[in-house]
Formats: sequence, C-alpha cells, structure tokens
Amino acid sequence: MAVTTRDGSAARIERDIEHLATAPYTRSSEAIRRYAYTPEYRNTLDWFTRELEQIGFTVSEDPLGTLVARNRPSGVPAFGIGSHCDSNRNGGKYDGTMGVVTALEVCRLAHEQELDLPLQLVSFLEEEGSGFGQMLLGSRIVAGRIDESDLRERFRAIDDGRSFWEHAEAAGYEPSRWRECAAVLDGLTGWIEMHIEQARVLQDTGNRIGIVTAIAGYVHADVVVHGRGDHAGATPMDLRLDPTLVLAETALELERLAREAGRGTVGTIGEVEVDPGLINAIASRVRFSLDIRGPEDDAYRDVAGKIATAAATSAEARGMHAEYVERQRLPATPMDEGIVGALERAAAATGEPYRRMHSGAAHDTMCVADRVPVAMVFVPCVDGISHHPAEDADPADAALAAEIILAAITSLL
Amino acid sequence: MAVTTRDGSAARIERDIEHLATAPYTRSSEAIRRYAYTPEYRNTLDWFTRELEQIGFTVSEDPLGTLVARNRPSGVPAFGIGSHCDSNRNGGKYDGTMGVVTALEVCRLAHEQELDLPLQLVSFLEEEGSGFGQMLLGSRIVAGRIDESDLRERFRAIDDGRSFWEHAEAAGYEPSRWRECAAVLDGLTGWIEMHIEQARVLQDTGNRIGIVTAIAGYVHADVVVHGRGDHAGATPMDLRLDPTLVLAETALELERLAREAGRGTVGTIGEVEVDPGLINAIASRVRFSLDIRGPEDDAYRDVAGKIATAAATSAEARGMHAEYVERQRLPATPMDEGIVGALERAAAATGEPYRRMHSGAAHDTMCVADRVPVAMVFVPCVDGISHHPAEDADPADAALAAEIILAAITSLL
Repeated sequence: MAVTTRDGSAARIERDIEHLATAPYTRSSEAIRRYAYTPEYRNTLDWFTRELEQIGFTVSEDPLGTLVARNRPSGVPAFGIGSHCDSNRNGGKYDGTMGVVTALEVCRLAHEQELDLPLQLVSFLEEEGSGFGQMLLGSRIVAGRIDESDLRERFRAIDDGRSFWEHAEAAGYEPSRWRECAAVLDGLTGWIEMHIEQARVLQDTGNRIGIVTAIAGYVHADVVVHGRGDHAGATPMDLRLDPTLVLAETALELERLAREAGRGTVGTIGEVEVDPGLINAIASRVRFSLDIRGPEDDAYRDVAGKIATAAATSAEARGMHAEYVERQRLPATPMDEGIVGALERAAAATGEPYRRMHSGAAHDTMCVADRVPVAMVFVPCVDGISHHPAEDADPADAALAAEIILAAITSLL
Repeated sequence: MAVTTRDGSAARIERDIEHLATAPYTRSSEAIRRYAYTPEYRNTLDWFTRELEQIGFTVSEDPLGTLVARNRPSGVPAFGIGSHCDSNRNGGKYDGTMGVVTALEVCRLAHEQELDLPLQLVSFLEEEGSGFGQMLLGSRIVAGRIDESDLRERFRAIDDGRSFWEHAEAAGYEPSRWRECAAVLDGLTGWIEMHIEQARVLQDTGNRIGIVTAIAGYVHADVVVHGRGDHAGATPMDLRLDPTLVLAETALELERLAREAGRGTVGTIGEVEVDPGLINAIASRVRFSLDIRGPEDDAYRDVAGKIATAAATSAEARGMHAEYVERQRLPATPMDEGIVGALERAAAATGEPYRRMHSGAAHDTMCVADRVPVAMVFVPCVDGISHHPAEDADPADAALAAEIILAAITSLL
C-alpha cells in the first residue's frame, strides 16, 4: 500500500473538512450548525462510520450516541484519539470536526503503514451545548459527571424545551442505559485530542503545533453592586452611590491581579448589566461576571479570592455593598507528562516550530482525564477566531499534527 | 374673607394632590400615569379649570392643550406661575403636579387676601414625554423650539405609533394653529415655577426651600470602544484588546474630572452595552453613555471635551479605537437675578432654612426663559426619589413655597 505523504494527508484532511461543511451536514447555509439528534449530526456520524469501516475499524455508538471505532475487539487495550463533531450554532468548520478528521487521518496512516497499532477513535456526543445548552455533554456522561435527573429533567432542548431523555429516545437511543456509556473509556491506555487553539498564541508566536501541558481550571462568578439610583443631573458628585465606579475599579484591579499572578492566569469581565440603564440616571445596581482561569489552581483561585475582596472594599469605600456569588469552579486538568514528552519528541523530530502551552478553553479531554492518561495537541487558527463562520485553520498543520500523534503513540506502545 | 394660615394652605395642597392621585386622574392603580390626550389628563385639566374659575380666573387652552388661567384680560401684563400636570409612566404624585397645585394655592391666597395681583397660571402640555417620547413638549412648542414636521411626522405616540398631529386632532385640538401657542408667554412680566427637587441636596443639607439660580446645561454623548472579541480562557493578558478596561478607565477619569471641575459639574455613565456579553468572551465592543451637566457651560463642556480625549487616549494606549459621538447639547439657563433676589428675601423673611442652588434636571422654565425673566423654587423630596410611585414630598414645604412665591411676586410688582 502506498504511504501517503504529509501533503497527501493535508489534502485528505482538507477534502473531508470541506465535505462535512456541505448541506447534508449543517442546518445552516451561513455557518456550521450541527448538534445532537439532528439529521445533520446523524449524517456526520454515518460518514465517519463508513470511512472508518473502510479501513477495518469496527464502529459502534454508546447508548446515547458517542461514536466509538476500534481496530481491536472490545475489551482489548487500545490508545484513544478523537474529539467531537458537533458545532456551536453559528460555528465554523474546524472546532471539534478537525480533531475527529485528524484522528481519522491517524487511523488511515496507521492502516496504510501497516503499523498494527491498537487504536480507538472517539467522537463525543455534543461538546458545544448547542442542542441542550450543556457543554462537554457526551464526555461528562461518559465520565459519570452527571446525574440521571439531569438527563431526565434538567437538561432540556434549546429548540423545544423537551428533555434530553425524550430526545434521546426519539432518536433511537437508550437513555436508561446511560451508565453503560462509561465503557467508552474501558481499556484505553492513553488519549490524545487534537483541536484548533481558539486563540492566537500559536499564530502570534509563529508556531505550528502546541503541545498542551494543562487545561485551565476556572472560577465563574458574579459581582452585584448595590448603589442608589439617583437623577444624573440633580445629584452632586459628593452625594452619589454610583455602582458603575465599583465596576470600573474592580475591572482594573482584575487586570492588575491577573498580570501579577502570571503563570497563565487570565481574568475577564464579559457580562455587564446596569440598572436601570438610562443615560440620565445614576445606576441603582450593577451586575458583572468574572471569568478567572489558569492552568495552576492556586494562582487563579488566589486572584478570584482577591478580586472578591477588592470589589467589596471598593464598594464599602464608596458607601455601597457588593456581593460576590460563585457560579461554578472547575480545577485545572494537568496532562500526562509521559504522553506530553512523547508528543514533544515527535514534534521536535519534524523540525517544525512547536511550543508547550496550556489550554485556556475547556475540552472533552478534561473528562477523559478522570480515568485515562491524556494529552492534547493544538494547531493554530487564524487570528484566534473560533465559534464563528470565519473560523479558519490550515489542513497542513493538521496533517503535521496527525504525523506527530502517530509517532508519539507508536513510541509509547 | 378669612385668610388661610400656612397650615391651612398645606392641608389644601395635600387634599388636592391626593385627589389628583385617585382613579379618574391616573391610568394605573400602582403609580401616577397621566399623559397628553388621555381621559385622565383631560380630567386633570378640567379639575384645575373648575378650581381656578371658582376664584375668578378665566381659563383657556392654547391650540394644543397647554392650560392658561388669568385674572386679567388677555394681553394685559401678568406674572406667570405654574408647572406641568402630566407624569412619567411609573410616576409619583408630586413631580409637576405639586407645582401646579402650589401655583393654584398662590392664586387662592392672592384671591383671599384681595391682593389684586395680575397672575397667569400655566400648566404646560406633556413635560415628561410619556405620551410622545418628547420631554418639555408643551413648553418647547410654546417657545417655538420645534418644527411643524416634528409635530406632523417625527413625534409619535409611544402607545400606537400614530403622529402627534393625528392625536392632537383626535383630542379636538388644532395642530395647524401651533404657532399661536407662543401667545402663552405674551405679556408675562416674570415667571416662577415650583417643583420638587428630585435629588437629595435639600434633604441632606436640612433646607426646606431651594432658590434656583440656574438650570444645568448638558452634553449627552456616547463612547464606542472597538476591541477584539477573543476567548476569555484562551487569550493571555498580553494579547488582549479588551474594551471593558477602556470603559473602566474612562469612568474613573470622568469622576475625577467632574470633581476637579467643581462649580456644580456632574458626570455619569448610565448606559453600558457590552458585546457579545458572555461570561467566557472578551468583549469585541463596548458602548457607554455620558451625561455631563452643570450650571456653568464652560465648566461642564470642558469636562466633556477632556473625557472624549481621555477615552481616546485610554483606547489607543491599549491598541484600540474609541469613538465619541455627541447626541445633544443644551446650554445652561441662568435664572433672573431680580426674581431670585426677591425670592431670597421672601424666604429669609419666613425664618425657615433655605439655600441657593442650581437645578440639575431640565424643566419647562428653560423654555419660558427664551422670552421671560424666570426663576424656580424647589422643595425637598424624600431621599431624592422621583419618577417613581415612592416619590414623596411634604405639603407643608409646598405651602411655605406658595407663601414665599406670593411675597416675592408682590414685592416685584
């Protein structure tokens, strides 16, 4: 069998990604829009199934629709690769899908080169939450990070409000067997997910490959500042309780604290709500969100603690009151140093520019890490744009990633 | 005829205000909701007409519905007093209405005391803009500050989108005669409007009366900061273009500049719009409003100029771009020193605590000032709350104001 060159891989990856961006695979002609239990999602799983069966893989789905393809019988150890093939509602061609296509390319290369590597490709059910508003849905189910009541009651379709459970049954799945989804990770000796970076670190530093060392943990919180809604014209500066000024001081302090903390820590205020929100009224109340992340739990959690104090102090100094309410916190996920090392050696061997980095975004790999040694490989995406039809990435980088992943797995077995 | 005491005046004012807060006079049972060309507004004009006719005034309406009551024939010089009797949609009992009721009380006292003062009471059509979204509507028409095309086309009812012109005709008025509304100010030798303060200066400084020396002018503007919408987790602090930080720096600088400018200057950011407004996304764009006011045009306009520069500088220093777009600017309206002096002497004579102050809010008196020497008298309202059903003011303060206004007018004639 002829061995495909890196350029040949790139052409194959490009062809597959463009194919999966055509009408049968997206609900929108303006964007990629593909989510669980839609015909377009079904078509996508069917397409991967056919491609994988052609190279001798046995393809099945877990009781809720996560796709599993193996070149070894069930129960026999194998090395896991994959990502997700759903998109957000106004998505691009690359987020998730390029990872599954690249995993398919790894399988093809292993097959062509007759490497006899034990491989398991996984495409996790709904990572983006476009169908049921739940990020990492498939991998959280596989990892047992949800309750049955979530599936029966709490998780509801954005389109029609019906439960996940109902939709799964209507699509021919068996939600009552959800606990068996855990078997997806059985026998995995390791796991590598390839994904576009979704930021601009690789582009701005001139690297083609990112070897992920950790996925950032985060604290999501809200700060509500209670001021006093007065007339903007009639209230002298000295008699005001203006909560927008607490927002201002907190925003600048968050920037300062995140920079000071270093070690990959970032902090963002992305949502701001001002009541009543009139040009001629001093706000009575301001709410703003905090997104504080980093690969090192102690560093970003310290920033979260300090900014809660800073907001309270700023409010008190101005005669107001600020509440800090945490929405969610998730610890950072360190990658497995053995797999990271193997990837780094494989990357170095190509002579192409690569760097170690952490992932600021969440990925299914966080859930896989509950039971399996994991790592991730990033490729650049243009200007960091993602979750948007303008998302763009180079199939040549994905081909390079496929080659590196294949070499790393080979070296580990 | 028995002369009413100050307590008697207070009781009468309280009775009138409470009466005008009952069902026939408000479209809401939760708030005062009264605006042009509604039955409730009609009932209110009719009530004032009856009360004024009982004390010998001749009552008419201009071609669009501003009520004019005189105790002298048309054309004969008289001193003007009054305010407006519409409310905002979720309004209180006092804003505007207390001013007209107090003007009525001045007429009653003059009548009882047989002072033979030439008086003209005016209740301007729609000041709050609840019907047609146009503040100071009646007084702007009287002052000729609008165009016919505004009335025919641009000013439209909030309730049904039909033009002011159509509504005026349907209510039995003659909009084609709008230029004749200017006659409302003919022959006025002076004008005093009494109003609740709508802020907390009088309450917080322990004064019962405010003698207004100027009505603040203002600059209304928007700042739009164009950043770069990136992933909040995946974008390092050094690679961000986060426009919320320009908002933060501008908000604090506005506070600093307004305090530094002094002379009654105030600056407020009341509207904030963050796109896309997601917890995990760095904003791509932030818009915020600026409301910058003061009684001295050079002072607050200097702050407006400096804050436009400050926003641009903050954006540029961070690699972004900020646009400053002015919505509207209106100059300050100085009060007539002769009338202010007469009011001050009358206030001092009562022995009650009063102060000179400026009005931060706009009032019909700004339009009257185009042709007539004007002044205003404020009374406290509890905690500065206004434009809200919780609005509260003391009829005893209004009675004191009526006494002072009557004495001032007497001294001026």
